[in-house]
Formats: sequence, C-alpha cells, structure tokens
Amino acid sequence: MKVLVLNCGSSSLKYQLIDMNNESVLCKGLVERIGIEGSVLKHEKDGMDEKYVVEQPMKDHKDAIKLVLDAVADEKVGAVKDMKEIDAVGHRVVHAGEKFACSVVITEEVEAALKECIDLAPLHNPANLMGIDACKAILPDVPMVAVFDTAFHQTMPKSSYLYGLPHELYTKYGVRRYGFHGTSHKYVSQRAAEMLGKNIEDVKIVTCHLGNGASIAAVDGGKCVDTSMGFTPLEGLIMGTRCGDIDPAIIPFLMRKEGLDADAIDKLMNKESGVYGMTGISSDFRDIDAAASEGNELAQAALEAYVKKVQKYIGAYATEMNGLDAVVFTAGVGENSITIRERIASNLEFLGIKLDVEANNVRGKDTVISAADSKVKLLLIPTNEELMIARDTLELVK
Amino acid sequence: MKVLVLNCGSSSLKYQLIDMNNESVLCKGLVERIGIEGSVLKHEKDGMDEKYVVEQPMKDHKDAIKLVLDAVADEKVGAVKDMKEIDAVGHRVVHAGEKFACSVVITEEVEAALKECIDLAPLHNPANLMGIDACKAILPDVPMVAVFDTAFHQTMPKSSYLYGLPHELYTKYGVRRYGFHGTSHKYVSQRAAEMLGKNIEDVKIVTCHLGNGASIAAVDGGKCVDTSMGFTPLEGLIMGTRCGDIDPAIIPFLMRKEGLDADAIDKLMNKESGVYGMTGISSDFRDIDAAASEGNELAQAALEAYVKKVQKYIGAYATEMNGLDAVVFTAGVGENSITIRERIASNLEFLGIKLDVEANNVRGKDTVISAADSKVKLLLIPTNEELMIARDTLELVK
Repeated sequence: MKVLVLNCGSSSLKYQLIDMNNESVLCKGLVERIGIEGSVLKHEKDGMDEKYVVEQPMKDHKDAIKLVLDAVADEKVGAVKDMKEIDAVGHRVVHAGEKFACSVVITEEVEAALKECIDLAPLHNPANLMGIDACKAILPDVPMVAVFDTAFHQTMPKSSYLYGLPHELYTKYGVRRYGFHGTSHKYVSQRAAEMLGKNIEDVKIVTCHLGNGASIAAVDGGKCVDTSMGFTPLEGLIMGTRCGDIDPAIIPFLMRKEGLDADAIDKLMNKESGVYGMTGISSDFRDIDAAASEGNELAQAALEAYVKKVQKYIGAYATEMNGLDAVVFTAGVGENSITIRERIASNLEFLGIKLDVEANNVRGKDTVISAADSKVKLLLIPTNEELMIARDTLELVK
Repeated sequence: MKVLVLNCGSSSLKYQLIDMNNESVLCKGLVERIGIEGSVLKHEKDGMDEKYVVEQPMKDHKDAIKLVLDAVADEKVGAVKDMKEIDAVGHRVVHAGEKFACSVVITEEVEAALKECIDLAPLHNPANLMGIDACKAILPDVPMVAVFDTAFHQTMPKSSYLYGLPHELYTKYGVRRYGFHGTSHKYVSQRAAEMLGKNIEDVKIVTCHLGNGASIAAVDGGKCVDTSMGFTPLEGLIMGTRCGDIDPAIIPFLMRKEGLDADAIDKLMNKESGVYGMTGISSDFRDIDAAASEGNELAQAALEAYVKKVQKYIGAYATEMNGLDAVVFTAGVGENSITIRERIASNLEFLGIKLDVEANNVRGKDTVISAADSKVKLLLIPTNEELMIARDTLELVK
C-alpha cells in the first residue's frame, strides 16, 4: 500500500509518498508560495542528482496538489506510473480541540468538526482544510485520514490541562492546555521503547521536541500525561521567536506602556521573542550557539536560560510521573546540536542522568547517548511525523 | 532594643512592636479603612482578654500611625511608657526592582529609588512610601529601615530571571523575574537549616510559601536561585484569585473574544481567577477543600491542579539545584492544611520524599513532618516576616 502524506500550510505544502510494505519514502517534496507570485514546487526522490523544480503560477492548494500528483506520477522523476497507485492520503491537521483523541478517516462530519476548531488554530486549520478539499476534488475515490497534532495529548488528566482561570472560559471557549507536536512525541516515545527493548506500557519517558518550535512531553506507559505547549504553541520553552512561559501580567503592562493592541502583543510574543528577541541575532539556534562561542553575552544568557528551562521541565515531568526511564531528544536542535544536548544533560545527576560525551558526538540518527551506568537512558531519535501519519493512515484504511 | 515593624497597604496597616532582646512581640495590631469611612484600629497584646478597638476617622497614614503610637504607648493597652522607647522602625516594602539586594537604612536617596520602582508595583510601593513619610513626620529622629519583598531573590542568576522576550524590554522597562515573599522565603530557609542542624551554606532547600498568594523558591546554600513569582506576583502557582502560569497567548485571545482592555484582563487574571475562578466557590482553600470532600468536582479538579503545580515546581527546582535536602511548607495553607500538605508530599518517592502522616497531623508550629527514612526532610515552619524585618532593622541600626 502506498500512502501520500500531506502537510498543508497557508501558502505551502509538504508531501511524501511512502510505500508501507517497507516504510520507505518513494519521493517527497515541497510547494511554496501557493497563491502568491513565484509559486514553486521542489521534488526529489532517491537517486536523483538534483531536485526537480517547477516554477509556475498556482492560484490555490488545488493547483498545487495537481502539480504534486503530476510529479509523483511523472515518467522521469515520479515514483508511480499512475496516480491511481496512491491508496490513501494522510493529512496532518494541527488542531482537533477535544473532538478527536486519535486519527480518523475524513468524512463530512470530521470536516465540520475541524471547521469548529478554526477558532483554536486560526492560522493552521483553514490551511489544513484547504488541502483536504483540494485532495477530495482531485482524488475523489481515495480514502483520506486526518492525523492531529493535538490528539496524542488528549490523554492528559484535568490536573494537567486545566488553567487557573475562570471555569466558564473552558466551557465557553475551550481555554485549556491542548499541546502540539503530538505526532512527533508519539513517534519518538514508541521508538524509544523499542530501542530500550521494553514494552511502552512499562516506561516513563520525557520527550524533548526541540526545533524552532519546541515542546516537551511526559509520556507514562505510552500515554501523554503532560506537555509544555498549551492552549496554543506559544507556551512552554523559549523557542526561536516565541517567548514561552512568562508572567502573564507582563502583557497588560506592555500593552499600556507601548500602546499595543491584542494583535500587536500576539505578534511580539510569537514572532519577535524567543532567542531571536533575546539576542537580536537570529532565530536559528546554530547562530546563537556560534555567537555564544564567540563571547556574545546576550547569546550566552539566552542559551543558558533556554537550557535551564528544558532541564526544569524534565525535572517537573519526572516528578509528575514519579519516575524516569528515558529522555529523548528530537527535532532540529535535539537531533543536531551536540553542544546543546550536552548542556541539557549536564548537572542532572540528581535525576539519575549521565551523558556519554563520546556517544553524544553524533547527529540525526537513532543513538543511545547516555553513559552505561546512567540510571536514566538518554536517546537521540530523529522524529518522523510523516511516517507516523502514514502508519495511522494505513491502520485506518487497510 | 525595641523595633516597630510596619506593613502599609493602600488603605490598611499592620504593625508589631518587637523586643529584640528576646525577639518577643510586645504588642501588635491592624488599622483598616484608612482614608475611607469606617476607619478602625484593632490592637492587642499578650494577656488582654479582648482586642482594643478604636473607631475614628483617619484621613491618611499619618493619622493612622499617630493612633498606632498612641495605642503602643497607652497606659492600659500599650507596651511601652513612651513612644521614645521605640528605637527603630522596620518597613516592609514590596518592590526594590534591581536597586537593592538587601535591607537598607532609609535615606532620601532610598526613598527616591523606591519612587522609581512605582511603575513595577503601582499598588504597593506608593502605600509603602506613604507609611515611610508618615513615620518620618511623627518620629523624625528614629532610624528607619526598608526590608524588601524582592531583595532575597536578587541573587538569582540571569538564566532564572530573564524571560524569552526582546532584550530591550528588560533594559527599557525592567521586564524580568523579580520574585516576591522574599522575607518569608529567607526566614523559613534559615530556620530550616537550624532545624536540620546544618550550615545553610551546605543545604539545598525548596521553600513553599502557600497562602492566598503563593510562591516557591529554590534556596541553594542560603541563596535564592529561582522562584515562581515573576515580574509581578501573578506568575507561578494557582492561587486564591490569581491564575499563575498560563499560555500567554490566551490573553490576546480573550481580549478579542470578550472585548477586554488591558485593565480588564489584568483584573480577570488577578482577582477573578485561581481556585476562586476555577470553582466559583471561594478563594479560601479551606472552602475548596471542604467542597472537594463533599464531592464537588470543580473543587476536586482545582485542588488536583493546584497540588500538581506545587509538585512540579518542587521537582523543577530540585533539578535546577541538582539536589534536594529539604522542602519547607509555610504561610496560611502550608502551615494549616494537613490534607493539602499530605497531597503535595504524596507520590514523590522519585525525589526521595516520604511523609510521616502522623507527624503531619499538626498546625502552625515548627515540625519535621517527613518519615525517619525520608532522604529529603519535610518541614513545617510558620513564617515570621515581622521578625525577619525586625532582625534586619536591628542589624542595620545597632
């Protein structure tokens, strides 16, 4: 069975065609600037010397998906002879609110439910829905599955997801912790159990998805019991441009001082903060790391604050689970920054954590990086949300 | 030496006269509704059958302090023969920004510095300054000391006090974590070291000040290295009416949905949230506890969320200090709620915490409440901010 995995943003689209017989990626690519001047598709498959690039106007997601399917079934650069070989489509969808705690086959009812969640993810859900509509029009007979960023976190108990806010804000607007990156946290926690040779029911894992957006989850017996992102993907860790946890009273203070409205403060916290705002240098942790090495004090301070926050969440979640078997690092920073992983894993003997500095000298592949005598195992596991989406899709349509 | 300790609010004032020879309270009291119809002073000293109550108009703090001094030197209810026996006055001051990391003798320069901090504590510092001015007018020759709620936390490293916000907000407005309840955290951490029979330099303590306002501090070797309250006393734990940590993106979301301005959202988070907002019952934890016992599900959920938050901070701070010798409970809830202490101390074996349920059956007195084989000691220590203020005052004026 071949599954096309689609991740639609408002003006972009990522795809992978995966052969589920051996879970291999047949081809993959990216479309950018959909509906904007300069639309472009970049397609690749194993063995190609360079990417296949198509620059032509795409007025909407339907145009984009048509082009993707042309590339996928192209005689030269494609991976199938006919688009009819695509057995199913798996869509990444950001927000399912409290409606779905697992992936589902997309029906009209599902689409309606996702429309009701637009308020909770005004930037993401409409784009996801555009992708679904476009696919339905072009591949009307192919079953489609929605895989939600929030679903894995729906197992959190109330004590983790309720805020200290008036209860009516929860009942009226659904103001609660949802958590994001769920597909990634689920994938790496399952893979961690495999690498440890244990049943996932028997292990307590903290998964650190550290990318430009970053979140941590407490996974107890395979179920998420807490996570650092909240009502939106702003809460929790210091990120590339997002502030993470702050004193909420800072917001009205700044609005008064700077004459900002709700949209402006939202932008400040989401786009102008994080290590970028703290340093004025970059939202890319590689640039921050380099600047810190060269003695830039703001970069050093930002990195220290970032690392401490990660450590505190690991400690808080180990405490919450009353135990800790493994900590997983994944996503851009987690998979590739040897120095940041080393800093996070330092001075955590109290938790039973001891890094193997040699083993940690690695990027982007499944590796145990803790010392042999570390009570808690440290694992580097590249995330694979596309594969997780394809697996859920296979499971639901086979 | 006799020290008068004053804690001035905007329309109220608390006082204690302490004999520093034996640290005994000679008399104490409360003035309410200063500058409002119905002004009243309630005064007491040991051995009095009932409180001495004076109801008469007080147009400002000067009127109130005059009345306090009359009571303190009253032939019948007073504790001294003449107000000249008052050797020094110690003032509680809420916010010293980054200006003072310890208590100081009040001079014109100090007063000017505190005026500069009004922006950071617009409700509290003006009231504290009114108290200082009134005292200066009435007791011009008595030395006065300011003891700051923020001072103890000034030892925090940058990695604890910097937010993931644009750096210019720190340089321009002083937006950073300050922390509050410092006098209490300092007092109980020092007392904890005494009770453990250790030098404070050698112990790692988490102090839980759990009152209607609540904060937690990590005290490593006698120095605060982190605390849960932040730029204002809103951040951190779920409190009586304050929300504590939330996803900051909730604020612009609610402002748009409910048409709230900065003041209204401030009020919602500070006055209408916490366990009061979560349950609609009360801001008093005794009421929440009672309602939970009777099966009220909102009260049960609020308590669970409150307890989990405290536990997570304990775990985060133990991780941050890379060790934990003791956890201290203090303030209203911490000193008096047997059930809440028991819940907080449950399921924390991972941290090395084991409660002695029998020993915990106590209220309001210095007690070790951990089991004999608990690696981490649990201590109940009634806080005594007034004594701490008097001690600092004595130290600076003797």
